[in-house]
Amino acid sequence: MQNPSWTGTVHHDGSPLYVQGADQSADQSGSPLSYKIGEPVTIRLRVGADAPVERVFLRSYPNGEQAMTELFSTEAQAAVSPAENCRWWEGTFPLTMPQNPYRFLLLTAEGGWWYSAAGVTRHSPTDATDFKVLAGYQSPDWVRSAVFYQIFPDRFADGDPSNNVKDGEYLAYGQPVIARKWGERPTLAPGYGGREFFGGDLPGIVQNLSYLQDLGVTALYLTPIFTAPSNHKYDVADYREVDPHFGGNQALADLREALDGRSMRLLLDIVPNHSGKMHGWFTAALADPQSPTAEYFFFYNHPGDYESWFGTGTLPKLNYQSVALRDEMYAGENAIMRSWLRPPYRIDGWRVDVANMLGRQGESQLGHKVGRGMRKAIKQEDPRAYLLGEHFHDGTSHLQGDELDAGMNYRGFSLPLLRWLSGFDTAYPNRPYADPHLLPSEALADQWQAFLSAIPWQIALQQFNLLGSHDTPRVLTAVKNNPDLAKVAAAILLTFPGVPCIYYGDEIGMEGGGDPDNRRPMVWEREGWDTAMREFYQQLIKLRKELGVLQEGGFQILYAEGETIAYQRELPGERLIVVARRAADGLAALPLTGAGLSSDTTFRELLTGVKGVHSDDHLLLEGLPDTGVQIWYSGQ
Amino acid sequence: MQNPSWTGTVHHDGSPLYVQGADQSADQSGSPLSYKIGEPVTIRLRVGADAPVERVFLRSYPNGEQAMTELFSTEAQAAVSPAENCRWWEGTFPLTMPQNPYRFLLLTAEGGWWYSAAGVTRHSPTDATDFKVLAGYQSPDWVRSAVFYQIFPDRFADGDPSNNVKDGEYLAYGQPVIARKWGERPTLAPGYGGREFFGGDLPGIVQNLSYLQDLGVTALYLTPIFTAPSNHKYDVADYREVDPHFGGNQALADLREALDGRSMRLLLDIVPNHSGKMHGWFTAALADPQSPTAEYFFFYNHPGDYESWFGTGTLPKLNYQSVALRDEMYAGENAIMRSWLRPPYRIDGWRVDVANMLGRQGESQLGHKVGRGMRKAIKQEDPRAYLLGEHFHDGTSHLQGDELDAGMNYRGFSLPLLRWLSGFDTAYPNRPYADPHLLPSEALADQWQAFLSAIPWQIALQQFNLLGSHDTPRVLTAVKNNPDLAKVAAAILLTFPGVPCIYYGDEIGMEGGGDPDNRRPMVWEREGWDTAMREFYQQLIKLRKELGVLQEGGFQILYAEGETIAYQRELPGERLIVVARRAADGLAALPLTGAGLSSDTTFRELLTGVKGVHSDDHLLLEGLPDTGVQIWYSGQ
Repeated sequence: MQNPSWTGTVHHDGSPLYVQGADQSADQSGSPLSYKIGEPVTIRLRVGADAPVERVFLRSYPNGEQAMTELFSTEAQAAVSPAENCRWWEGTFPLTMPQNPYRFLLLTAEGGWWYSAAGVTRHSPTDATDFKVLAGYQSPDWVRSAVFYQIFPDRFADGDPSNNVKDGEYLAYGQPVIARKWGERPTLAPGYGGREFFGGDLPGIVQNLSYLQDLGVTALYLTPIFTAPSNHKYDVADYREVDPHFGGNQALADLREALDGRSMRLLLDIVPNHSGKMHGWFTAALADPQSPTAEYFFFYNHPGDYESWFGTGTLPKLNYQSVALRDEMYAGENAIMRSWLRPPYRIDGWRVDVANMLGRQGESQLGHKVGRGMRKAIKQEDPRAYLLGEHFHDGTSHLQGDELDAGMNYRGFSLPLLRWLSGFDTAYPNRPYADPHLLPSEALADQWQAFLSAIPWQIALQQFNLLGSHDTPRVLTAVKNNPDLAKVAAAILLTFPGVPCIYYGDEIGMEGGGDPDNRRPMVWEREGWDTAMREFYQQLIKLRKELGVLQEGGFQILYAEGETIAYQRELPGERLIVVARRAADGLAALPLTGAGLSSDTTFRELLTGVKGVHSDDHLLLEGLPDTGVQIWYSGQ
Repeated sequence: MQNPSWTGTVHHDGSPLYVQGADQSADQSGSPLSYKIGEPVTIRLRVGADAPVERVFLRSYPNGEQAMTELFSTEAQAAVSPAENCRWWEGTFPLTMPQNPYRFLLLTAEGGWWYSAAGVTRHSPTDATDFKVLAGYQSPDWVRSAVFYQIFPDRFADGDPSNNVKDGEYLAYGQPVIARKWGERPTLAPGYGGREFFGGDLPGIVQNLSYLQDLGVTALYLTPIFTAPSNHKYDVADYREVDPHFGGNQALADLREALDGRSMRLLLDIVPNHSGKMHGWFTAALADPQSPTAEYFFFYNHPGDYESWFGTGTLPKLNYQSVALRDEMYAGENAIMRSWLRPPYRIDGWRVDVANMLGRQGESQLGHKVGRGMRKAIKQEDPRAYLLGEHFHDGTSHLQGDELDAGMNYRGFSLPLLRWLSGFDTAYPNRPYADPHLLPSEALADQWQAFLSAIPWQIALQQFNLLGSHDTPRVLTAVKNNPDLAKVAAAILLTFPGVPCIYYGDEIGMEGGGDPDNRRPMVWEREGWDTAMREFYQQLIKLRKELGVLQEGGFQILYAEGETIAYQRELPGERLIVVARRAADGLAALPLTGAGLSSDTTFRELLTGVKGVHSDDHLLLEGLPDTGVQIWYSGQ
């Protein structure tokens, strides 16, 4: 059923212009996005001035029973600077639960329309895409203004050659480890990926913090650093010791101290889904089926037949039906995940590996229980700690406020973006079900919106957006080595809701296909850099840190047709419109009908400083390259 | 983004033609819809012959990681009778979890399309609308072939005048109870609804089982019968005693025995969300804040300030943070909900009142925990017991296989249906947010599909479909006393996926507005009956019981435009098409492009016996009244 065109002018999201807590004024004083159970919250809806909407009701759902609250437009017009082409509706409802869902009913002379985060429908939708406000939510609020940088420690910088793995020093995967020289490439042949070492370590990170600060990043995410035979260390042998080849526990304490000096944050990577087969829990369990840690694993037929990650026998799957394991990993007083949050390490959060499979095995589907347990433990240690989960698929069921603070946002951000830019299917490279076609702009908008509409706005602003990682080809390779497309990707990364993370070396134009080619040693010689790319990243990072509208502004897709996508971020008094084009499509002016701006708004393009030319319903796109981005800003 | 027209020919659902377990053959021997973890299941997809689909993959999600399985069309063509205008694709995947989600990826030369229960999209959807197969699911399989009849015991039949409530016998709501004469109407003035008694009782039901069997129903649902002051008995004073005015416990044992003689089933109504204020738990708690049952309630300020249902102080809300209450209500060995499942009562299941709010209060949101606990207890007593929840809104989060077997299907069935038929907004009669407009046919289809796509197919076939209840105006009143519209409603009720329930008296054309007007005493004088209505119900019930395709057939909406809606039910060798029209719209022939039938299919209209005339892409609708239904059947 085709919606009438006025429905495209309806907008609401969780940002301060649209949701205002009791102790927050519209000018954003008070603590934004922080709400308590028992408090009223003011809700505003923006609708095109020509829309035939006669009355508006807000439908909330206290304790599972619906409540209807009428919204009125007079109060709203007073609270929000009015614009000729839109009308605001406003009302208040009390927060009663940790998660408070709501949607809108718009009555017209032709019938009622429901508006949820998924859009406008004539029929009554399910609750799945209701807007949601979290109350009493322990937010890692620093994340919203952070810019992350992901480091694969063996490949970033070698700060202490004395701790390097020596050629043949020990066996990994049953074969001797190999020492490689910085600047060489990882061997792509099978069997080499995990056992080649370039010597990177934590002291190397400490020594290069100036580089990172010059780039502008404010937080580091390190892939695992705990003792393990491989270079990637996802095969953990000891969750309580930093690998000596990375510098040991003292090196982590030193890194923490160095980061403190620069007000930088630190996120570590924990692998609770499985251990490595060299872990003491597993060797004890193998040796004796009665050992206390035998219950940590799934033995079908001791000792040879046990569950492991994707059938990889070196990574035995952990069994969270074991209360002792839960205590050891996160729940107990001295649990692993708690201990690293304490001095002298004081990490700022965890990236949880394989969060999608964690605690799930056949009959025993404990994923949500483990997620809630981890949250509880971590927030007891530090209410502002960041709990991030790896999830290549739809992680939204873990992102409702009582488990993960965020997911690695492949599915709701980068996978459709890269497919839109170049047809590169990061989800399934080289598989028969890879779809090599460019994703239509409408489908990119649909996928972004579908994943945003499934989670609370407060979570959306913490989602861990990325263009690539140690698990995917690098962005430049994904866009077929077209730096213009890579720059479009970077601009979207830095302007999209959620926290951006840059994979080490992307900022200097490093290339690399799938693992291990995406793990080449960092290039430290400037002649190897794409300096234009680096400057572009610096410029974007600076904007990201300066502009609250990029950190906490709303999100509305304004246009998705042809080769162009455009979206708006809004805060009271600030407005930012990103126009991204992958190829020439003849669009000379961006339609602004649904954007709710007034004719006296003035825009400036932030990358070039050019002044905008617009009427209240179109913005001229003069100067936008065939492949490129404009960032139009209007603010005080 | 407009989908290409071929996407309308794509179909899959959970019925035996499309999902086949390891011990089931395509001719439906073996146990249909019963699957075990560890077994493979065969999945088939039907696509129009002209669709440009080149390859098809099934995406499953074992333990949270996606797996892609290619489907092929050759095997499928062999397994399913081929038709000229469609092509079948088939493959197999192993069931690994209690709930196994899956969807399809269809590759074409222009790009890939995803197909989930919500339809076809160019972008990768969230998992919320994946198809889902339950494995190891304890199904109340008898429900699929049942026809329910809902009785409000005080108003159905007075079998034993000696137990009648006497005028002024006691106080209810602080006022004397009132004895009324059969045939009178309930007083509509405020303050009378709950305290007028007509004398109906369980012996009255026993004495009228012939009437019910003649009508054709096979299962009874009684609103509460446990001791309580009101006539409706939702204000329970004792969960362990049948109200003496209904005949006491012995009368229930007698009813059970009488039903056994006719192979009829019995569903009772439990009110676990709140007790009545006369319940001993509450009076003890009121008298003494240290009493053991004080923790069963939410006292904010003892004794006057406590939580109650919608602020109704006579119905204090129960607090499931209390382990003792959980034990008493469902979990313990002699829990209330267990005991009535045992001899001599052996009820066949529970209808759970206010399931939407149950266990939910502010910070403490235990709804799903209580739901899982109730399921566990009840299935321990009888794996085939039926656990039905009242839910006026979106109950799908409780309908995933580990809690309720079904919900009272207002939102996914009758609310949109009645709004489509007459614009009657049962959800909000007489409220300012009621929408008096006829729901467009497309929106009816969208709402039905949205709610079906959120639950496993095995649950969909158990959904408790109804046109009205003691909580809503009667269907005839809802359709503005137009018996033709009421018949369209009845025909859809009896042919829709899910189990139909008829509210007592609807079959004889009783009228009635909201509570208590919808609770008039049953009319037993034949001169008061709409006999044509009753015969129509009898005819439909007979079809429902005779035709497996109505009980377990698939569901596909074929047409939803103008004033007409049409859907198809399918089983191997059987096909049934329902065409329902609310008013003249000039549609002379139903398009069958997406129905997958071959040109040699022969149809018969079941209500009239008329033979169908069709080509492979249209079915003539000769004889379909402006307001009416045709039921076209094709089978062996």
